[in-house]
Amino acid sequence: MFSPDGVTTSVAFPIPDTMKAWVLDGPGELRATTKPVPVPQRAEVLLRIDAVAICPSDIDNIWYGWPAVVDGGKPFNKNWTPGHEYMGTVVALGPAVDEFAIGDRVAVEIHAGCGQCKRCRQGLYTACLNYGNRAKGHRANGFTTDGGFCEYQVNHVNTMAKLSDDISDELGTLVVTAGTAMYALTEIGGLIAGESLVVIGEGPIGLFVAAVGKALGASPVVVTGLSPQRLAIAKSLGADHVIDVREQDAVVAVREIVGPAGADYVVECSGAPVAINQAIAMASRGGRVCLAAFPAEATSIDVGRLVRDNIALFGIRGEGKRAVHRACALLRDKKFDPSPLHTHTFALDDLPTALRTAKDKLDGAIKVVVKARGVAAGRVAAE
Amino acid sequence: MFSPDGVTTSVAFPIPDTMKAWVLDGPGELRATTKPVPVPQRAEVLLRIDAVAICPSDIDNIWYGWPAVVDGGKPFNKNWTPGHEYMGTVVALGPAVDEFAIGDRVAVEIHAGCGQCKRCRQGLYTACLNYGNRAKGHRANGFTTDGGFCEYQVNHVNTMAKLSDDISDELGTLVVTAGTAMYALTEIGGLIAGESLVVIGEGPIGLFVAAVGKALGASPVVVTGLSPQRLAIAKSLGADHVIDVREQDAVVAVREIVGPAGADYVVECSGAPVAINQAIAMASRGGRVCLAAFPAEATSIDVGRLVRDNIALFGIRGEGKRAVHRACALLRDKKFDPSPLHTHTFALDDLPTALRTAKDKLDGAIKVVVKARGVAAGRVAAE
Amino acid sequence: MFSPDGVTTSVAFPIPDTMKAWVLDGPGELRATTKPVPVPQRAEVLLRIDAVAICPSDIDNIWYGWPAVVDGGKPFNKNWTPGHEYMGTVVALGPAVDEFAIGDRVAVEIHAGCGQCKRCRQGLYTACLNYGNRAKGHRANGFTTDGGFCEYQVNHVNTMAKLSDDISDELGTLVVTAGTAMYALTEIGGLIAGESLVVIGEGPIGLFVAAVGKALGASPVVVTGLSPQRLAIAKSLGADHVIDVREQDAVVAVREIVGPAGADYVVECSGAPVAINQAIAMASRGGRVCLAAFPAEATSIDVGRLVRDNIALFGIRGEGKRAVHRACALLRDKKFDPSPLHTHTFALDDLPTALRTAKDKLDGAIKVVVKARGVAAGRVAAE
Amino acid sequence: MFSPDGVTTSVAFPIPDTMKAWVLDGPGELRATTKPVPVPQRAEVLLRIDAVAICPSDIDNIWYGWPAVVDGGKPFNKNWTPGHEYMGTVVALGPAVDEFAIGDRVAVEIHAGCGQCKRCRQGLYTACLNYGNRAKGHRANGFTTDGGFCEYQVNHVNTMAKLSDDISDELGTLVVTAGTAMYALTEIGGLIAGESLVVIGEGPIGLFVAAVGKALGASPVVVTGLSPQRLAIAKSLGADHVIDVREQDAVVAVREIVGPAGADYVVECSGAPVAINQAIAMASRGGRVCLAAFPAEATSIDVGRLVRDNIALFGIRGEGKRAVHRACALLRDKKFDPSPLHTHTFALDDLPTALRTAKDKLDGAIKVVVKARGVAAGRVAAE
Repeated sequence: MFSPDGVTTSVAFPIPDTMKAWVLDGPGELRATTKPVPVPQRAEVLLRIDAVAICPSDIDNIWYGWPAVVDGGKPFNKNWTPGHEYMGTVVALGPAVDEFAIGDRVAVEIHAGCGQCKRCRQGLYTACLNYGNRAKGHRANGFTTDGGFCEYQVNHVNTMAKLSDDISDELGTLVVTAGTAMYALTEIGGLIAGESLVVIGEGPIGLFVAAVGKALGASPVVVTGLSPQRLAIAKSLGADHVIDVREQDAVVAVREIVGPAGADYVVECSGAPVAINQAIAMASRGGRVCLAAFPAEATSIDVGRLVRDNIALFGIRGEGKRAVHRACALLRDKKFDPSPLHTHTFALDDLPTALRTAKDKLDGAIKVVVKARGVAAGRVAAE
Repeated sequence: MFSPDGVTTSVAFPIPDTMKAWVLDGPGELRATTKPVPVPQRAEVLLRIDAVAICPSDIDNIWYGWPAVVDGGKPFNKNWTPGHEYMGTVVALGPAVDEFAIGDRVAVEIHAGCGQCKRCRQGLYTACLNYGNRAKGHRANGFTTDGGFCEYQVNHVNTMAKLSDDISDELGTLVVTAGTAMYALTEIGGLIAGESLVVIGEGPIGLFVAAVGKALGASPVVVTGLSPQRLAIAKSLGADHVIDVREQDAVVAVREIVGPAGADYVVECSGAPVAINQAIAMASRGGRVCLAAFPAEATSIDVGRLVRDNIALFGIRGEGKRAVHRACALLRDKKFDPSPLHTHTFALDDLPTALRTAKDKLDGAIKVVVKARGVAAGRVAAE
Repeated sequence: MFSPDGVTTSVAFPIPDTMKAWVLDGPGELRATTKPVPVPQRAEVLLRIDAVAICPSDIDNIWYGWPAVVDGGKPFNKNWTPGHEYMGTVVALGPAVDEFAIGDRVAVEIHAGCGQCKRCRQGLYTACLNYGNRAKGHRANGFTTDGGFCEYQVNHVNTMAKLSDDISDELGTLVVTAGTAMYALTEIGGLIAGESLVVIGEGPIGLFVAAVGKALGASPVVVTGLSPQRLAIAKSLGADHVIDVREQDAVVAVREIVGPAGADYVVECSGAPVAINQAIAMASRGGRVCLAAFPAEATSIDVGRLVRDNIALFGIRGEGKRAVHRACALLRDKKFDPSPLHTHTFALDDLPTALRTAKDKLDGAIKVVVKARGVAAGRVAAE
Repeated sequence: MFSPDGVTTSVAFPIPDTMKAWVLDGPGELRATTKPVPVPQRAEVLLRIDAVAICPSDIDNIWYGWPAVVDGGKPFNKNWTPGHEYMGTVVALGPAVDEFAIGDRVAVEIHAGCGQCKRCRQGLYTACLNYGNRAKGHRANGFTTDGGFCEYQVNHVNTMAKLSDDISDELGTLVVTAGTAMYALTEIGGLIAGESLVVIGEGPIGLFVAAVGKALGASPVVVTGLSPQRLAIAKSLGADHVIDVREQDAVVAVREIVGPAGADYVVECSGAPVAINQAIAMASRGGRVCLAAFPAEATSIDVGRLVRDNIALFGIRGEGKRAVHRACALLRDKKFDPSPLHTHTFALDDLPTALRTAKDKLDGAIKVVVKARGVAAGRVAAE
C-alpha cells in the first residue's frame, strides 16, 4: 500500500499503489491504462479525484495538441493524462503541509507557479517565466503535467480551495472556470461594480463571466451569442440583456443598450476572429477588452482604435491571484447558481463518450462531468 | 486693443485685436491669414506663442487629414489652424484665474477634457467621452480646436506647466512630446525602475521614450531603428543598446540583450504594421506593449500570444494625467538633454519650408521649430 | 417667475423666485427663512429637492460646527443652509447641459471638485486642492455651499445619478451614503470579492458598508457594535456575523471568525478612539484599514503594527470616483435592500424635530428623512 | 570537506565544514564561536559572505531584542547569528538551481516568503502570513533565521541580485537599504516622477530614500534632520533642499518649498513620535505618508487629518517586490553614488568595535561595514 516517506495518510482513506488513468496516444485517441499513484512532495497533497469536468481546451489538447502543452511540444504519445477541471478529497499530505487536512473536499486551480521568477514574485504566477519547468516547481495540471482523467493527482497547496459541504462534486468541478471568470473580471480586468460588461460568446466561459460579472455588480451585463438555448441560460444566470447575433448587429445592439459611448468592459469568449474587432468596436473610450479565447491564427485588428481611444487589449490564461478561492466564496454565498451549466455526468470509464458529448454539444451539453465512483457505466443524464 | 470683459491684461504685454495665423485649405495647402486674437474664458489664459515645433501628426493632419480632427471630419477648408507642440508666455488671464501670472513662460498639453464625463472624472481626460465637443469644454488644441501656427492661443489652466528660465523656447516646445513619453511610461505603462524597455522606432517620440525611460531608471533601454544617425542620437540620450534592423533581426537581438524571457515593456513608435507583432514577440510573459504610433489600416496580430502569455496591448494618445508637468520637472532637473533632437528653427512666415523640412527629413531634421519673433525669414540652422 | 438668461425651464415644472430654506444661526439653532431660488450656471442643473436624509455629519455641523465647513471657519450665523443627503427632480438646465432632462429624478454626490487642480486631474476630486473655493468651481453642498434643507438647489452635472423609477424618494436619499460605502470598498479600499471584511460600528455608514460589501462579494462580512437592534439589521442587510462588543472582545471574536491571520479589510465607522487600534489589531498582515469616521482629537495609535505588518491606514471623505452612480446601479439591480435603514419621515417644516429624532436616536431612528411636499406637518412614522 | 548530497560545488571555491560565526548571548553581548557551514536546499545557494554592513535594526536586535525576531520571542541566548545587510559570492548551488553560477557576486534581500500563503501569492512576500515559519520556507535572514555576521550563509534564489563588477563589496552591502528605499517609493508608495518628496530623518534609510527618490525623478526632494554633516551628504546625494529642524519649523519650511498645498509624498525615517504628525501635516490633500521607521510605543496621531484630507498612512518592512534587483540596476547605471554613506570598514573579528562605532555614530559613522577577509584586525577607516 501507498506509504512514501514523509507523507501522512489515514486509514479512513486507504490509497492503492496504482490507479486507473486515461492517457493520450494519437490525436483524439485516449487509452485506459494503469499508472502509479503519484507521491506528494513538500507543500503538496494527494487528492482522490471525485469529479472532473470537460473544458473546451481539453478538446483542443486531445484532438489538436494545441497549444503545445507537454515538454514544449505536442502532447501525443507521451503517456500523458489530460483533464484539469477537477475536484476531490485530500487523502495524503506531503511533508510540512498543515494548510489542509485529510478528508477536506477541495476545488483546484490549474497553475502552480515556480514561486521564484520575477512574475511569480509579482503575484503573476499564470505568467510564470518557468512555465512548464517541473524541476523549478511549475505545474499546470492537465497541461504541462498529468491532470485529472484518472483516480488520484497531486496538487500544490497553492492550488486548492476548500469547498463548502453544500456544493456538490459536480458543481465543485465548475469552480476552475468560475475562478477564471473571477480573475478576468477583477484583478486583471479591474471591473468595478456599476460598470457595463459585454460578454461575447455563450460557451461555458462566457456564461461564467456573465454570472460572475453580475454577482460582482456589473450593470448592465450583456451576452451575445448564436444559441437561443444558451442565451436563455445566460439570462437565468444574471445577464440583463442577450443579443442573438444572427438577428442583430452585435455592435449596434450593444451600443443601444449601454449607451452610445460604448461598454466599459468587454470579454471576448468566442475565439472567433471577427469577434475581436467587434469587442474593440463595442468598447468605450478608455474601455478595456479581455480575450478569454483566441483564434488559432493571427487576426486582423483595428489597432488604430486601440490607440486613438485609449483601449487596452489583454488576455487571460486561467485563474491567477487565487481567484479560485474567491470564486468558492461567491458560490458558498449563493451569489449565483451554476447548476444550469452542468448538463451531463458519465462514469470515468466512459470518458470517450463524455468527450464526444462535450465536443459535439450533443443533447444540449454545456458542462459534462466524469466521475470515477458512484456512477454506473453507460450514459447518465444530468441530475 | 484687446480688452474683453473679465479678462486681465498688462501694459507690459500689449495684445493686438488680430494676429497672423496659418490656416489649412486643401491637403498640404497652408495659407497665411489674419484672425482675431482669441479671448480666454473662465479657467483659461491667453498665450503669446513664442515657439512651436512640428510633430509627425501635424504632417498627417495637414497632408492626409487623418485621423479626422475637426468637427469629427477631415480638417480641410475649415479655416482651421494646426500646430500643437508650442510654448509661450501668458499675456492675459481669463476670469478667476490665479494659477498663472502674466509673464509666465509655459509649456502646454494638448488635451483639456470636459471635466464632466466618466473618463474625465476618473482622471482619463485624454479619453474624454466628449472628445471634440467644444460646448462641453473639451479642447485638443491643434486637433479639434485651433492650434499653434499663429501668434496667440487660449489654453485651459489645466493644460499648462511652468518652464524654468534655463529651458529655451525651442526646447520648451519639446515638452509636449516628453510628456507623452512620460505618460506612456508611467501611469499608463506602469514602468518601474529597473525594468527592461525596448523602443521600436527612432522618430521623435521613440527618441523621447528612450530618453525619458532611461531618466526613470529603465534598464536596459534598447532602441531599434533604421537610421544610424538617429540611433547614435538615441545612445547619446541614454539608450544602453541600439539595433539597426537592417542588419539584425530585431526580436532575436532584443532577446540576446534583455535575456531569453523577453522585455518587460515595449513601446512601439514606428507605426509600421510589422512592428506590432515584433513588439509582441519581444515582450516577456506578463509583459506590456504600448502603441505610441499605429498603421492607418487594420493589422494582423498574433493575438494568441497576448492570451497565452498574459501580455497587455494598449495605446497612448497624448499626454494625460498631467504628464507634461512631470516632464518639465525632469527637464528642470537635467535628467536628460533633449537638445540633440532640436535640429532646425524657422520663422513663422516660413512655415511651409519648415513643414517640408520636417516631412522629408531634410538635412538630418528631427524636430523643426517655428518662431513668430526673433528669427529672420529664410532658413535658419539649429543652434 | 424664475427665468434667468441661458437657463432652460419647462411649464411642467414652474419655479418660484424664492423658496423656503432653513439656515443655521448659533449652534443647534436652525431658523426657517426665505431665500432666492439659486440659478444653475454652465454644467449645472436646478433640482427641486424631493427628500433629504439626516446624516450624523449634519448633526456635527449644526451643533458643533465641526469640522469647519463654510469659508474655512465655523458655519454659524452665516445664513448657511445645511443638508447634503438629498434627492430631487431636475427642473431647470444651465447652459450647455444635455446630460439630464427636465423631469429626471436624481440622487446626488456631495463633491464637485474644481476640475483643475492636480488631485481633480487624477480623479481624486474629494481631495480637491481648491476645496471650499467657490470661484474655482468647488462645491461640497451642505458643507461649503448651501445644501438641501430647502426647496431647490443647484448641482453640477458631475454630481448626479439618475434614479430608477422603482426607488422611492426616501430610499433615493440614502444613495449618498451607499456611494460613500461603495467608494470606501472599491476604488479606495480595493476590496476584491472573497476577501474578508470587518465593519466596526453599526451606525448608518457602518450598516451601508456591510450591505454594499456583501453585495460586492466580501466574505465573510462581520459587523461589531453595541446595539442588538442594529446588529440584527446588519444581519438582515447581509452581514454573515455580528459581534456585540459589550459581550465579546471584538478583536478575539473577529479572529475566531475570519481565522487567526486576521481580516483582509477593516472599515472603522464608529469614530471611537479605541476603535482605531481595534481595527489595526483585527487586520491581517498586508491588510488595510479604512477610517470612515474619526474622533475629534488626536488618538494614540499602534504605528509599530502598521509598519511591521504592512498595514495601510487611510480615510474616506465622501463618495469620490462617481461611486454614487455605481451605488445606484446596485440599488437598481436589487443587490441589497436599504429600506430597513429608513425609519422616519417628517415634513420639511418639522426639520428641528427630525434632527432631534436622529441626534438622540429616538424611537429606533436610523435614517430620518425630511420632505418638502406630501407629508403633513407633525411626526410621521416610517413607511 | 563540505559536500552534501545534491549540492554542486567547485574546486575554485573550497568550502570548509565549519565557520566562524558571531552569536548573540545577552543584550549587547556577542560571542565568537564556530558553527557548521549551512547546506543549501532546493532553490537555495550557499554564499561566502564577503562584506556585511550594520543596520540600525541590527543594533535594535542586539541590544533590545526588539521587535521580537527569533521563534516569535526575544533573540537572546538562542545561538542566533544576526546581520542582514550582506553581499557575497555564490560558492555552492542547491538542487535544481541554475539561476546563479558559482562565482557570481550577489547582493541580497532579507525576505524569502513561504511562497504559498495569500500574501505571497499576491506578491506581498514581506507580509508573508507564515512569517518566521521555517518549515513553510519563510526566511528573514538576520531576523528569524541566521544572518550575516559569519563566513557563509544560505539564501533562497529569490533573495539575490547579481552585482556588476564595478560595484565594490562595501557598496554591495548597501543594496539592501537601497532596495528598501526603492520599494518604499515605487510599488508601495507609487511615486511618480515629478512629484514632490519629503524625507524626515537623515539616517541611512532616510539618505537612501532621498538618493533613490531623486534618481527616480521626484522633484523637489526635501530632507529634514538634525545633523548638518548628514544634511550636507543628503544634498550631495541629490536632495534639492535640506531643513535643519533645530533652526526651522519643518512643516512650515516644507510648505514654503513645495507650495502651500503640501507634499505629494512623505517618508518618515526618524522613528521620532513627533515626526509622524509632522509627516501628516506636511502631506497634501490626497498625499501619502510612508513610515520607514517607527517609535517603540503607541503614538498620538491626528487621524482627523487622514480622513478629512484623504491621506494614506502605511509602513514599509524591508524590500519587497524584488526591489533589490531594481536598486542594483540603478547602481549599475550610476543613477546615484552611495559611497559617501560608507564611512568605516572593520575586520569580522572586530565586530564589537564596529557595532559600537555604528551605534554611537563615532567619528561621523554612517554605514559601517565588516569583512571576513582582506581587512587586518584593528580599526580601518573607510576607503
